[in-house]
Amino acid sequence: MAANCTIGIDLGGTNIKGGVCDAAGGLLVTHEIETQAERGFEHVFARLLGLVDELLRKAGIGKADVAGIGLGTPGPLSHSRGIVYNAPNLPGWVNVPLRERFSRATGLPVVLENDANAAAYGEYVAGAGKDVSSLVMLTLGTGIGGGIVLDGRLWRGADESAGEIGHMVLVPGGRTCPCGQAGCLERYASANAVAERLVEAIRAGNACSLTADIERGRAVDARQVLRAADAGDALAARIWDETCYYLALGCLSLERLLSPELIVLAGGLTNAGRRLLEPVQTHFQKLRWHLMPATTRITFATLGTEAGTIGAAALARSQ
Amino acid sequence: MAANCTIGIDLGGTNIKGGVCDAAGGLLVTHEIETQAERGFEHVFARLLGLVDELLRKAGIGKADVAGIGLGTPGPLSHSRGIVYNAPNLPGWVNVPLRERFSRATGLPVVLENDANAAAYGEYVAGAGKDVSSLVMLTLGTGIGGGIVLDGRLWRGADESAGEIGHMVLVPGGRTCPCGQAGCLERYASANAVAERLVEAIRAGNACSLTADIERGRAVDARQVLRAADAGDALAARIWDETCYYLALGCLSLERLLSPELIVLAGGLTNAGRRLLEPVQTHFQKLRWHLMPATTRITFATLGTEAGTIGAAALARSQ
Repeated sequence: MAANCTIGIDLGGTNIKGGVCDAAGGLLVTHEIETQAERGFEHVFARLLGLVDELLRKAGIGKADVAGIGLGTPGPLSHSRGIVYNAPNLPGWVNVPLRERFSRATGLPVVLENDANAAAYGEYVAGAGKDVSSLVMLTLGTGIGGGIVLDGRLWRGADESAGEIGHMVLVPGGRTCPCGQAGCLERYASANAVAERLVEAIRAGNACSLTADIERGRAVDARQVLRAADAGDALAARIWDETCYYLALGCLSLERLLSPELIVLAGGLTNAGRRLLEPVQTHFQKLRWHLMPATTRITFATLGTEAGTIGAAALARSQ
Repeated sequence: MAANCTIGIDLGGTNIKGGVCDAAGGLLVTHEIETQAERGFEHVFARLLGLVDELLRKAGIGKADVAGIGLGTPGPLSHSRGIVYNAPNLPGWVNVPLRERFSRATGLPVVLENDANAAAYGEYVAGAGKDVSSLVMLTLGTGIGGGIVLDGRLWRGADESAGEIGHMVLVPGGRTCPCGQAGCLERYASANAVAERLVEAIRAGNACSLTADIERGRAVDARQVLRAADAGDALAARIWDETCYYLALGCLSLERLLSPELIVLAGGLTNAGRRLLEPVQTHFQKLRWHLMPATTRITFATLGTEAGTIGAAALARSQ
């Protein structure tokens, strides 16, 4: 076999996922290990090398069969310089020349990419966006991650920090964000923001079926907010609908600016299924201009947690 | 001389500007005529042909010296299909196959482009952006036009309606826009919006040195608002500063999404010079996140009203 395969790795604060893709981009094998991030950089680096060996063993191939490795990592980082500047979930990872070190240790070409970008590229090559040439992806989790693919290429921007869709300003002077801005989209429409906004509304004196839980100090998550809404709780229903409204507003601005073929929603909040997608689409149609019909479709990601691995493997091939 | 020149035309509702550029993109000659749009499509079309003849005469060249014509036109239109769908300022221009007709009549290749895109491309090739590879341009006039250049190419989007920066939603549920949306950037930061917001504030009972003028039915424009602010009028000063704040917020979201090297401001409002640019830059620095230093610079366009002509001529060459 020629060097037709690529390896994709999705490095997270809790787990590291890896996969081997064939020449057509299809996932041959996968493997997942714990990150053990608290044990520092050198420990995690050794685990990354072990993961590569395990992937090769599972796939029954050698390094000669591998064209390169794509490595999706939490940012901020520089794709072009191959350096992780500072990964908040990976203690001790400050100004790490990860591409060079990983390439030297494996003997293979390495491409370093922001994890949200890698996932967006994965959905582009093999997921919800496999039939389009442009998409914007929003991963709705603790925060909102993003990635932009235009004409089949990741748009990284002048300082490689483009695609921070969660930090578009949605509400001037709005909720403060740890990033230093106010009114960021992720303060209104991430999974965490749903629960936070409900708790704030309860503390402001609104009645809610979850009040007792919260007063007992129990954490509330987006899933419980939706469950309460569906059980007839008016406050939870309002918070959920506002979340969909804010997401639709974000999609609207993306359509006006970029007119991508697709906006792909991913992450924990999409577990709500059509209870999320339908109201977002309805608000979007109602809020958008009437000068031209919508060409931007809003849909869910299809690759689940494998998007980052598949995207990283594809990026290893594209460079 | 080989066919080294290109012609650029900027078709507006009031005037048509044209120019001949040499192989290096330098403007050799220009000529401007009235559009006489009220006399309908065939009349304006004949005037376009007359303008081409006059440009050739002024430049002392023949059609054999011209590689192509770039034609910047108010939209919505399709660059790829060469059709003007409906130009509000050009009565009777509905679904006009302008590229084909103009090419047949002149015997030259024609490229059709949205006028705001052509101006953005002009600033990219020969103006404020001549040393960068990515920029976003905002033309602050009656409304806010926009154009996006990424890696040296205009980003037109899936339906060729990208770059509508004036219709990003800035304020959820905000001022209504003729486009059908609410809260569009251009309802807060166009030249017209400055005057409208002052008049609304006066009608809401705020004291202002321009109240007598407005009660006498005199029209107020952005220039007068700024003059009143500089003469010590508190309301005018607040409206002007809010305008700069809203523009800075728009620039902030553009930086988060696209990280362009440059945001170029153009149009009537930039006649205010540093009274506009400095507060916009100050608000931008204060509002933006602290995770990374700014790489997006905000600056003024340098080509003035010739940006559209130069950009159209350059697009004729790039196709």
